[in-house]
Amino acid sequence: MGTDTITPRSKDFSQWYLDVIRVAELADHSPVRGCMVIRPGGYAIWERIQQELDRRIKETGHQNAYFPLFIPESFLKKEAQHVEGFAPELAVVTHGGGKLLEEPLVVRPTSETIIYAMYSKWINSYRDLPLLINQWANVVRWELRTRLFLRTTEFLWQEGHTAHATEANAEEETLRMLEVYRDFAENEMALPVFTGRKTDSEKFAGALRTFSIEAMMQDGKALQAGTSHSLGQNFSVPFNVRYQDDAGQMQYCWMTSWGVSTRLIGALIMAHSDDNGLVLPPRLAPLGAVIVPIWASDEEKALTLEAADRIKRSLAGITTVKIDDRDQMRPGWKFSEWESRGVPARIEVGPKDVAKEQAVLVRRDNRKKEFLPMSAVRERLPLLHAEMQHDLFEKAREFRDTHIRVIDDYAEFKEYMKAGEGFALSHWCGDREVEAKVKDETKATIRNIPLDKFSNPRPEEAGACLVTGRPSPFRVLWGIAY
Amino acid sequence: MGTDTITPRSKDFSQWYLDVIRVAELADHSPVRGCMVIRPGGYAIWERIQQELDRRIKETGHQNAYFPLFIPESFLKKEAQHVEGFAPELAVVTHGGGKLLEEPLVVRPTSETIIYAMYSKWINSYRDLPLLINQWANVVRWELRTRLFLRTTEFLWQEGHTAHATEANAEEETLRMLEVYRDFAENEMALPVFTGRKTDSEKFAGALRTFSIEAMMQDGKALQAGTSHSLGQNFSVPFNVRYQDDAGQMQYCWMTSWGVSTRLIGALIMAHSDDNGLVLPPRLAPLGAVIVPIWASDEEKALTLEAADRIKRSLAGITTVKIDDRDQMRPGWKFSEWESRGVPARIEVGPKDVAKEQAVLVRRDNRKKEFLPMSAVRERLPLLHAEMQHDLFEKAREFRDTHIRVIDDYAEFKEYMKAGEGFALSHWCGDREVEAKVKDETKATIRNIPLDKFSNPRPEEAGACLVTGRPSPFRVLWGIAY
Repeated sequence: MGTDTITPRSKDFSQWYLDVIRVAELADHSPVRGCMVIRPGGYAIWERIQQELDRRIKETGHQNAYFPLFIPESFLKKEAQHVEGFAPELAVVTHGGGKLLEEPLVVRPTSETIIYAMYSKWINSYRDLPLLINQWANVVRWELRTRLFLRTTEFLWQEGHTAHATEANAEEETLRMLEVYRDFAENEMALPVFTGRKTDSEKFAGALRTFSIEAMMQDGKALQAGTSHSLGQNFSVPFNVRYQDDAGQMQYCWMTSWGVSTRLIGALIMAHSDDNGLVLPPRLAPLGAVIVPIWASDEEKALTLEAADRIKRSLAGITTVKIDDRDQMRPGWKFSEWESRGVPARIEVGPKDVAKEQAVLVRRDNRKKEFLPMSAVRERLPLLHAEMQHDLFEKAREFRDTHIRVIDDYAEFKEYMKAGEGFALSHWCGDREVEAKVKDETKATIRNIPLDKFSNPRPEEAGACLVTGRPSPFRVLWGIAY
Repeated sequence: MGTDTITPRSKDFSQWYLDVIRVAELADHSPVRGCMVIRPGGYAIWERIQQELDRRIKETGHQNAYFPLFIPESFLKKEAQHVEGFAPELAVVTHGGGKLLEEPLVVRPTSETIIYAMYSKWINSYRDLPLLINQWANVVRWELRTRLFLRTTEFLWQEGHTAHATEANAEEETLRMLEVYRDFAENEMALPVFTGRKTDSEKFAGALRTFSIEAMMQDGKALQAGTSHSLGQNFSVPFNVRYQDDAGQMQYCWMTSWGVSTRLIGALIMAHSDDNGLVLPPRLAPLGAVIVPIWASDEEKALTLEAADRIKRSLAGITTVKIDDRDQMRPGWKFSEWESRGVPARIEVGPKDVAKEQAVLVRRDNRKKEFLPMSAVRERLPLLHAEMQHDLFEKAREFRDTHIRVIDDYAEFKEYMKAGEGFALSHWCGDREVEAKVKDETKATIRNIPLDKFSNPRPEEAGACLVTGRPSPFRVLWGIAY
């Protein structure tokens, strides 16, 4: 493939990641510092993510809406932790229509403040609750070190924002959406994740509690793939989001917010792809199969193209299919190109195949070849997709499970993290400073505290903190994060 | 409906428009100057618009992508007319991450410059052409006088950007997308439009030629509902978008761009709605029907809810349906509410209807009632939708056609425009200053020059300019625009 060579993962994982993106034409750097361009190949994946996630968001009773890109600077300052967390990352509009603005406008880094200013207007009575709204939008956070999809100054995301009458209702919503993310990650992205609660030092600026789903990439690093926040009344008080309860009393609402972003595309790449390029779980692949007719003469071309067309028509309603009828490239070149672009299945049809009324089906991830009657492709392809989807998940899970170690000794922990081998399950005394010390010394952070530990504490899991030796009720999940 | 009264159109059309939006909960003003909030009721319409338009954009060979929100100020200045047109409307980011930026960043008012900077990188050979990309995005234009949906500082839109090898190819694309817009407006929005070319003073800043679709609202005013621009090489030269032709020579590309925005929701409202609230063409209505069970006792409630549920299930796969089972409101109140929200059909089921196994079907626009067997609703509803869609289009067309007058006398023209009765077809000598004078004296502008006049000039249509008496090859379309 000439200049389109992909650096092997084993040689340089970071370069491999960028090579996969370049060769599959998923994204590109832009002339604007830290901002990426999502190319058609990458945007089509985002559209599939949106479709599947939007369906789940609506099925759980939420409606989409759209709020302003700009937020008056004073709004952010109304919640002390919130502004402290986001102030260093803001892009600020100071001029509009040729004039200096009286009050600068911040380009939204997240929309709690502007959305809750509207909720304050819309919510009057307990009958207006719960208010369940989601927004698909772009947001801007001024990042110093950027990386395509994983961390960019501007990115695309969805942010859900809900208001409830009680803390229990809000907590239930927070966990419901965490579960939506887990289900989406595991069943659509084929990405096994750990659900859990963030420590205070890693929680969202302004939240009571933050929950996350955490995945392992092929280099053993952790990727936070989605977060769900229980905001308590931290925002409803400064933004005056109140309702009249059934006894006629005014009460402050309990809020939640939750989001996932285009960083999920980075997760897909780093979890499943290989040295030949992109590998996509079939459920999120924009193109389900490519048909490559193989010919050596005009007569053979007509013959194989006709067969390719018949197969394509037989797949109508089953999956999206493209015929690669380009004249300039040889079949082998085409095979490599479609592999690098992550199309889950390739269907080859040569003159001999046409004579036998057969086709060759090749699965992207394991490159297994099957010969089957042309008429059977329609029945076989959905099964191949399902098998591949299942296998990608199992492979990722096996990889992850063999890259988690229970470690109770800090020296061993340091060595393990230095080698970059994966996650550790280790005891922690709950002290924020211990967390900071470990991060400083090993780059590892607490990814989350597994969810079932809170609801189901077991005395036999208690132990001593990795660093201080102080008592710890259970081990938490450590890793080096993207 | 208490405070939710809608001002009649005849009394105050502008207030009626805002009332319809408020009562149907389509949008709201935000605390940010000129920026609107699109509420769930309005956003669901935008999602329907996106679905139907996106399908057409993809069917004509385009792919979606996403480009940065920010544009370096210097990029805009590379095309002289472009910067002149947009400079007064820009929002400018001067600070990022707490620091003054070396070069200010403009929040995109439109994306030609940033997109073509990327095209310059991606296009090498004639084999890369045509490049056909579309983007769904938010844009910002600092407007002094804003109006929900019609003119807001931030709005949502799609912008297509294509590159071609020849001027003829680019012109063909420009007209193809104009036709996509016409087809979408007429067949989905039930909105009859005139397709035509803009005069030089009304064309897009930086275009060779701009084409538009123009619709008439119920107050006789014109609304530009979509534009398609033939950009020539005006952008490809400064942004160096070049390709190597098959003879090995470097050539500049010929570009097009085209867009429609959330202003289409304003067009839908002003074209079809009435004094009872929103009227939506069924093809774009997020909710196809609402079922209102009517009861006076718990026993009747159980009975009618069961029937409502049966009807809803019978409509699975036909249209989206909601059952209004709220306890607190009376049926008449519910009827008014759903009417004001523009649901095309209401299905009433009372205890007597259940006894007769019948339902009452009421069409939103003409309020016609039909009694039919419950089991027949499934078959009848799609026909009712189709009839309503057809009738809305015909009604709008008839209204428009009776509000266009051929005028060859400027005194009459002035009187006609002052009365605000509709469009005029009048001769024009082609002089830009005459256009400006007419606008100054009557507020009327040339909406467009009907498309068929260029390709099919007829000597019998020639005449004398309304103002100067100089020769004019045909009449052009005048109106007062939103």
